[in-house]
Amino acid sequence: MPIITLLTDFGLQDEYVGVMKGVILSISPDVKIVDITHLISPQDLFQAAYTLKSSYRYFPKNTVHVVVVDPGVGSDRAVLAVKMNGHIFLAPDNGVLGLILEEEEPDLIVRVENNEFFLETVSQTFHGRDVFAPVAAHISKGIRINQLGTPQKKEALVCLKIKKPVISEKGEIFGEIVSIDRFGNLITSIDLDFLEASYNCSCKSETIENVRITLGEHRISGLSKTYSSVAPQTPLAVIGSSGHLEIALSNGSAKQYYNADKGDTVCIRTF
Amino acid sequence: MPIITLLTDFGLQDEYVGVMKGVILSISPDVKIVDITHLISPQDLFQAAYTLKSSYRYFPKNTVHVVVVDPGVGSDRAVLAVKMNGHIFLAPDNGVLGLILEEEEPDLIVRVENNEFFLETVSQTFHGRDVFAPVAAHISKGIRINQLGTPQKKEALVCLKIKKPVISEKGEIFGEIVSIDRFGNLITSIDLDFLEASYNCSCKSETIENVRITLGEHRISGLSKTYSSVAPQTPLAVIGSSGHLEIALSNGSAKQYYNADKGDTVCIRTF
Amino acid sequence: MPIITLLTDFGLQDEYVGVMKGVILSISPDVKIVDITHLISPQDLFQAAYTLKSSYRYFPKNTVHVVVVDPGVGSDRAVLAVKMNGHIFLAPDNGVLGLILEEEEPDLIVRVENNEFFLETVSQTFHGRDVFAPVAAHISKGIRINQLGTPQKKEALVCLKIKKPVISEKGEIFGEIVSIDRFGNLITSIDLDFLEASYNCSCKSETIENVRITLGEHRISGLSKTYSSVAPQTPLAVIGSSGHLEIALSNGSAKQYYNADKGDTVCIRTF
Repeated sequence: MPIITLLTDFGLQDEYVGVMKGVILSISPDVKIVDITHLISPQDLFQAAYTLKSSYRYFPKNTVHVVVVDPGVGSDRAVLAVKMNGHIFLAPDNGVLGLILEEEEPDLIVRVENNEFFLETVSQTFHGRDVFAPVAAHISKGIRINQLGTPQKKEALVCLKIKKPVISEKGEIFGEIVSIDRFGNLITSIDLDFLEASYNCSCKSETIENVRITLGEHRISGLSKTYSSVAPQTPLAVIGSSGHLEIALSNGSAKQYYNADKGDTVCIRTF
Repeated sequence: MPIITLLTDFGLQDEYVGVMKGVILSISPDVKIVDITHLISPQDLFQAAYTLKSSYRYFPKNTVHVVVVDPGVGSDRAVLAVKMNGHIFLAPDNGVLGLILEEEEPDLIVRVENNEFFLETVSQTFHGRDVFAPVAAHISKGIRINQLGTPQKKEALVCLKIKKPVISEKGEIFGEIVSIDRFGNLITSIDLDFLEASYNCSCKSETIENVRITLGEHRISGLSKTYSSVAPQTPLAVIGSSGHLEIALSNGSAKQYYNADKGDTVCIRTF
Repeated sequence: MPIITLLTDFGLQDEYVGVMKGVILSISPDVKIVDITHLISPQDLFQAAYTLKSSYRYFPKNTVHVVVVDPGVGSDRAVLAVKMNGHIFLAPDNGVLGLILEEEEPDLIVRVENNEFFLETVSQTFHGRDVFAPVAAHISKGIRINQLGTPQKKEALVCLKIKKPVISEKGEIFGEIVSIDRFGNLITSIDLDFLEASYNCSCKSETIENVRITLGEHRISGLSKTYSSVAPQTPLAVIGSSGHLEIALSNGSAKQYYNADKGDTVCIRTF
C-alpha cells in the first residue's frame, strides 16, 4: 500500500489538511496518509526543510513526501517533483527541498506542469488542494514523475538560505539554534559530521569532556550521552536524534531556562 | 474502502478523539478515518458549519461526515442523520448543518433513535463516543439511515443563526468576518455568488480594480488574484479557496495587522 | 487489520510522531495507527496514565498501545511489554502503566531486551523511534511478547504516585483535580466506584441532590446528569464519561470560572 506524507504550515484548526486528504483519497483510495506536521511556523522554509530532512528516511521507499509551505502560492513559482534515494518529493520551488538536495544527488527533477493531474479548477490561493494533493495521489497510483512536466537541473532551483557552522583558526566552532522542539530542546546547526571532521574524533561512541559549549553568557562543559545523564534541571549538551548538537535541560525546557530563540549563536571550544 | 470524517471541538490534548476512533474501528475495522479538525472553538456552531461546508465536497461520495459540536449533549436535543448530494452527515440538531442544508436539498433527514446502533451504555456527557461513533461505523458498514430512526422535515430542524451579507440602495455591500485561519487571513461572509450577483460581474476571471474594501478605518483598493500579488507585508483582498472574500496580508497576518476579530464589519463599495 | 495506538508527550510541531509512524509502516505496512494524543504535558506521567486508562478499552482486542512519556530515555530504565485483558501495552518502566495495572491483573509482563526487534542503531535520546516503534510494529505482525525479553513480576515495577480519594470519619470525601480537559472541565480523582461505596448509593441512575461539592471557597449543590441540566454559565458537578466526578460550567470553562488547577482539593459532603 503506497504512503503519502504531508508536511505543511496549514495548522490544525482549519479544514485545509482534511480537504487535501479528501482530494487524495478521491483519486487514490488505498493510499495511507501520514502527517509529519502541519505546525511549521507560517512560511518558515528552513524549519520545513529541516523537518523533512529529519523524517523522510524513516519511511519505506516509494513514499511520496508532500511539502506545502508556499508563500508564493498563485505566483509563477514552479512546483517540483523530485526522485531521490528511492523517495518522491513534491514541493514548491522555493528552497524547501534545499537541505535534502544538499545531501544527495537526485535521480530526476521535474517542473510539474501537466494540468491533467490537477483538480479541474485551480484556485490562486490553495494549491495544496488543487495541485499538490491530486498530483501526489496520481504518483501514489503509479504515474511516473517524468509524465508530470519537463526535467529541471538542480542548479536552476531556488536556493534555501542555509546557515552553516564555521570553524575559526583557533578551532572554535560557531553555529546557531535552528530549531526548538516541544520539550524546549535547542537544536543547533552543528551536526555530528561537522563536529567529527573539525575535531577529528568520534563523538557518538563516548562522552566528550574536553569541550565547552557557549550560548550567550552561559557555558556547558562536555557532551552528555542522554538527557538524564545529569541531575534534573541541569543544562547539558547532547548529540540529538537527528545527529545535531542540542542544548537541553534535564527534565525541563532549555528554551525557558536560557530564554533562547532560533538564530541565537552557539559556540564550541576545546580546552 | 469507506471513509468517515470527524469534525469536533474536542481538541487534541484529551483522549476523546482517539476513543471515538477506537469505537469506530471496533465496529468497522476497514474504514478510513480522516480528521477535518478538532480545534473548533468550544461550542462554536457557526465555525463548525463553515468548516463542514468548505470541506465535505472534496471527499468521495458515500463518505460519512460526523460533526460533534454539541453543547446540548445529554439533553433531549436530537441526533440527525442526513443524506444529501451523495454524502451522509451525522450531527446534533443544533444548527451545525445549517450552511450545507441552505445550499442543497437533502434526500432524507432522519432523527436517530434506534439504540441498537449505540454503545450498550450511553453516558450523558460523551455522545461522540456512545452515539455518533458507533452509528457512523454502522453506516460505513452499509446500514441505511432510514434504519436509524424516523424521518424529519427540514423545516422542523433547529436553525443556525447565519449572518448574511446585505447590499444597500447605494450598492454598498456589508458583511462580516466569519472565520480567521491559521495564517491570520480574515474570511468574510461575502461570497463570490453574492458579489457577482450584486455587481453583475465575474470576479473570478480577472483582477477587479474598481472596488474599495473597508475594515474599520482601513481601506483596501481592488481585488488581488493571489496572496503574493502585492509587496510583502501589504494588505490585500482576494477571493479565497472557499469562494469567500478574504482580507489578507502578503507574507503576514491580517489578523495581527488590523487587530481584527470575528464579527467585525467589512464593507465593499464600487467607485 | 491490527491497530497500534500512540500516546506521547512529543507534541505536534516536530517530526517525532511522523517518524515513529514511518518506522512502524516500514516494518508492518498494513497496520492502522491511531493517535490517542501527543499533547500530554511534557513528562507528566499521571496525565498519560489517566489518558491510557480512559481510552484503551474502546479499542478492539489485540490492539498494541504504545505510551512514550519517557523522561528517563537513554538511562537504564526498562521498557515493558504487558499483555492484559486481551490488549498489549508497550511503555517505559516509570509508572505510566500504574493506573491500568491497578485495575486488572496482567497475563504477562516482559522486560524488552531483544534488540533484534529494535532499529539497527539505537540513539540515546529517541527510543520512540528506535525501540518503541519497531517493537510495536513487530508485535502487530505476530511476534509474541515473551519473545521480546525476560518476564517481570508486577511487584518489581516502578510505581506511579497515585493520589487517591479518602473519606473522613464524618463521611467527607476528599479528592483532587487530576485532569482538566479542553472544555475546562475539572476531572477529579473521585470516581463513581468510590462514591457509591462511600455513600452506599447508585449515583449513575439518578440526580443526587443531597451532596455539596466544595472547591476552594466555592460550593455546588447536588449532582447533575448532564452539562446542560443547568442554565448556561452555571457551575455543576457531574459524573463524566470516564466515570470520575467532574466540575463543569454549562456552556463555559470551569477552569476559568474557578481559576482552578490540577492538584486543587475537591471535597464532597452529604447533608
